Amino acid sequence: MTQLPALRLLGLVLLGAVISPLGDHIHVATGTTAYDEMWLRIGDSPLWFPLFVGISTAALAETRVRLGGVRAAVSTRWAVGGVAAVMAMYAATGLLRGQPTALGVTLIAGLAIVVWSVIGDGRGAVCGVVAAVTGTATEAILSEAGVFHYASDSDGLLGVAPWLPFLYFTFGVVAAVLGEVSRSRNDQPVSSGG
Amino acid sequence: MTQLPALRLLGLVLLGAVISPLGDHIHVATGTTAYDEMWLRIGDSPLWFPLFVGISTAALAETRVRLGGVRAAVSTRWAVGGVAAVMAMYAATGLLRGQPTALGVTLIAGLAIVVWSVIGDGRGAVCGVVAAVTGTATEAILSEAGVFHYASDSDGLLGVAPWLPFLYFTFGVVAAVLGEVSRSRNDQPVSSGG
Amino acid sequence: MTQLPALRLLGLVLLGAVISPLGDHIHVATGTTAYDEMWLRIGDSPLWFPLFVGISTAALAETRVRLGGVRAAVSTRWAVGGVAAVMAMYAATGLLRGQPTALGVTLIAGLAIVVWSVIGDGRGAVCGVVAAVTGTATEAILSEAGVFHYASDSDGLLGVAPWLPFLYFTFGVVAAVLGEVSRSRNDQPVSSGG
Repeated sequence: MTQLPALRLLGLVLLGAVISPLGDHIHVATGTTAYDEMWLRIGDSPLWFPLFVGISTAALAETRVRLGGVRAAVSTRWAVGGVAAVMAMYAATGLLRGQPTALGVTLIAGLAIVVWSVIGDGRGAVCGVVAAVTGTATEAILSEAGVFHYASDSDGLLGVAPWLPFLYFTFGVVAAVLGEVSRSRNDQPVSSGG
Repeated sequence: MTQLPALRLLGLVLLGAVISPLGDHIHVATGTTAYDEMWLRIGDSPLWFPLFVGISTAALAETRVRLGGVRAAVSTRWAVGGVAAVMAMYAATGLLRGQPTALGVTLIAGLAIVVWSVIGDGRGAVCGVVAAVTGTATEAILSEAGVFHYASDSDGLLGVAPWLPFLYFTFGVVAAVLGEVSRSRNDQPVSSGG
Repeated sequence: MTQLPALRLLGLVLLGAVISPLGDHIHVATGTTAYDEMWLRIGDSPLWFPLFVGISTAALAETRVRLGGVRAAVSTRWAVGGVAAVMAMYAATGLLRGQPTALGVTLIAGLAIVVWSVIGDGRGAVCGVVAAVTGTATEAILSEAGVFHYASDSDGLLGVAPWLPFLYFTFGVVAAVLGEVSRSRNDQPVSSGG
C-alpha cells in the first residue's frame, strides 16, 4: 500500500512526464546531448525519458512521505516555486556548452543548495541524494550503452555532464516537497504501514 | 479618484521611468533590439519607452489595490527584492541571443514563477497577466509599425521575443507588490470608491 | 577581545579560504582574470588570495556582531543558502566575458539586492558596503601593481570588473549573516566590550 493516494501518484507521474521533454528538448537543441538510438519519440525525447522522470517524481515523493516528519508549513506555493526553479535550472544548463567544468558545477551546485535552503529539510536532502545518485548512474549506463551521449565538452563525469548530479539533487528535493504537499492535504493517511 | 495617493503614483511612474532605460540599453547593446525611428531619446531609449514603463508601473499598482485583499504581510523588503529580481531577469534576457527559443522561454518563465511564488498572490498574478498581454501586444504593434525590431534570432512571437511575456508578467507581479506596499503604509484609504 | 569565540573565527577563516580558490579558478579558466606574479600557489590562486578572503570573512562576521542588533530569527539555513548564493553568483560572473558592462552590472547588482532582501538587514548592508569598497580597492591596487589583471573586456572600473563591487557586497552581506549565526548560538557573549 502506498502512503500517497494512487490518484496523486498518477498526477505526479504526469507532472514529471509532461515537463521533462521540455528540458530534454533544450539539451538536444543546444547540442548538450544527442540521442543515438530512439524508437518511440515524444518531441526530441524517446518515450522512456518522460516515463523515467515521471515515475521517479512519484517514487521520490512517496519516499519522502515514508521517511516521516512531513512539515505542516509546506504549501502548494513551495511546490510551484520549486518546480519552476528546477525548470529554470534545467534551461540554464543549456548555457554551459564550452564553459569550464568548475563554472557549471559551481553554478548548478550553488543554485541547488539555494533551492534546498529555501524549501528543503534533512529528509528532502536524502531524496535529493538518492535522485542524484540514481539519475546520474542511469544516464551514465545509458550513455555507456550507446543510447545517447553528452557533447565532448560536457561529458567529464562518467560520460555525463559534471553538473548533472546537482540538477538531479534539486529535482529530488522538489519531488520530496511535492510529496509533502500531497500528503499534508490528506490528513488521514491511506495506510499506516510503510 | 485613485486608491493610491497622487504623490505615490508619481513616485511609481518615476521608479519605472528611471530604471527601464537601463534594461533597454542592455537589449540595444547586445543587439537584442534596435530602434528604427527615434525622435527624443534618453540614453539608448526613445522618450516614450520610460514613460510607457513608468505609467504602466503606476497603473498596475493602482489596479492591484483596486482588486482588494491587500496583504498586511507585504513589506518594503519584498518590493526592493522584487524590483531587483526584475532587473536581474531583464539583464539575463540579454544573454539569450542565438539560444534556442525553448531555453529562453523556460528560463524566464521559470524565474517568473519563482518570483511570483515568493512575493505574489492570485491578484498579483492577474496584474502579471495584464502586463504580459498589454506589454507584448504594445511591442508587437510598434515592431509591426517599424518603430523598432528584435534581432532575427529573437523575434519568434509576433515579431517580439518569445520570452517577453514572462518578463512582463514578472514586472506586473512586482508592480502589484509595489501597490500593496504603497497602500499598506496608508491605513486610511484616500477614497472608498473605485 | 573578540565578540565571536576564537574557534568560530578560525572556522570562518577556513570557510572563506577553502571556498574562494574555486571561484578564482573559474575566473582564471574563463580568462576573466590572469595572474602575472605568483610565488606560492593553491590551485590557480596565489596563497594570499584565500587568506585574504578567509580573514575578510571572519573580520566582516565579527564587525557585524559588534554593530549590535543580532537577529534571533537568523538560522544556519540562511547561512548555507547565502554561501551557496555567493558561489553561484561568483560562477555566473564567469559567463560575462564580452558582454556589455551594463548587462553584467545589472545582473550581479540585481542578484546582490535579491540576496540582501531575503537574508540581510541594515547592518548587513553596512558590512556589504565595507566589503565592496575594501575588496574592490584591494584588487584595483594589486592590478595597478601588476600582480594580476582582468581581461581587457572586463577591466572598466579602475582596472577591475564593473560588477566586482556587487559580488563583494553580497559576500559582505553573507559574512554578516555568518556572524549572526555564530553569535546567536552563543547566548553568553564572550566579551561585553567592543
